[in-house]
Amino acid sequence: MSIRVLGVDPGLTRCGAGVIDVEASRKVKLVSVDVFRSDPKTDAAARVGSIAVKLAQLIDATQPQSIAIERVYADSNVSTVMGTAQISGVVMYLAHQRGIPVTLHTPTEVKAAVTGSGRAGKDQVGKMVASILGLAEIPKPADAADSLAIAICHAWRALAMGSGVVSESITPAQKAWRQAEQAAQHRGKATR
Amino acid sequence: MSIRVLGVDPGLTRCGAGVIDVEASRKVKLVSVDVFRSDPKTDAAARVGSIAVKLAQLIDATQPQSIAIERVYADSNVSTVMGTAQISGVVMYLAHQRGIPVTLHTPTEVKAAVTGSGRAGKDQVGKMVASILGLAEIPKPADAADSLAIAICHAWRALAMGSGVVSESITPAQKAWRQAEQAAQHRGKATR
Repeated sequence: MSIRVLGVDPGLTRCGAGVIDVEASRKVKLVSVDVFRSDPKTDAAARVGSIAVKLAQLIDATQPQSIAIERVYADSNVSTVMGTAQISGVVMYLAHQRGIPVTLHTPTEVKAAVTGSGRAGKDQVGKMVASILGLAEIPKPADAADSLAIAICHAWRALAMGSGVVSESITPAQKAWRQAEQAAQHRGKATR
Repeated sequence: MSIRVLGVDPGLTRCGAGVIDVEASRKVKLVSVDVFRSDPKTDAAARVGSIAVKLAQLIDATQPQSIAIERVYADSNVSTVMGTAQISGVVMYLAHQRGIPVTLHTPTEVKAAVTGSGRAGKDQVGKMVASILGLAEIPKPADAADSLAIAICHAWRALAMGSGVVSESITPAQKAWRQAEQAAQHRGKATR
């Protein structure tokens, strides 16, 4: 038994979207990884719309039980932060529509989860993601590796918090989480 | 013949949404005005989702031909800008899904359009909105009046740019715009 997590590195120029399956043993498996792009020459609304459509298709095709998004702060790079927040909002809505729980993780949390250091560089994150998923090459561009790192971070943190997926001898917290995930999936199906 | 415009003052705590009908004579009529709120105690994803659902319902109920959103800059109030951008992204996606064109207007453009001055205060904007729409009272809270101001700004600017709605002796530009609006409506219906 495993849980499927979609990690999103939100962005208007490049939006990374990585899907993994995680087992109670913390073993993770790559399901898919995409980088959706929009044409910077078109207007913001068309760009948001086109990326949103691709994200919706991905969610419906892969049916993740949890979605994790990188949390972006308003004081980061001013030129890209608005597009990033717009795409984050879209992902939150797509998840809400389908009854899928959404969690935000800071870049520091993500780096620390996959490399052991909250100050790791892009390169280290990419290498660790490839190693964790048993990939021969580092997923490119960085947005692809980052989205997988976000998904791995979320999956491992959820497991560490007792949100396990073990089928036998589960704790009450694990049971409650599993029921919540199942209820969320059910709601998702009912509203589609 | 008139065109229906939805103006959105995006926000996570309060999201203003005003719908007006505008005639080629610049005469505008209030259709509806709402302020959608979300519970600051719930998480960001739930807040975005709940406001998005209300916006989607409003769009489907009122069927605007154009949507105008206030453009927010990353260097505005840092504490609210992320939520504002998230809701803007959602509105862009809802419009894209339905084939409705979206336009962004800056606060200065909106104030100038309804009061004649880009530096007008909230109070002046509210008074002018009430006067333009023939309302006995200023719509409250300010987000309600602002959303209507955004819709009026968009409608008048569109008319000024030759995007008229006159049924007889229209210019080629007016004809092209009307066809585009009709095509957008048609696409919206086909994808719903």
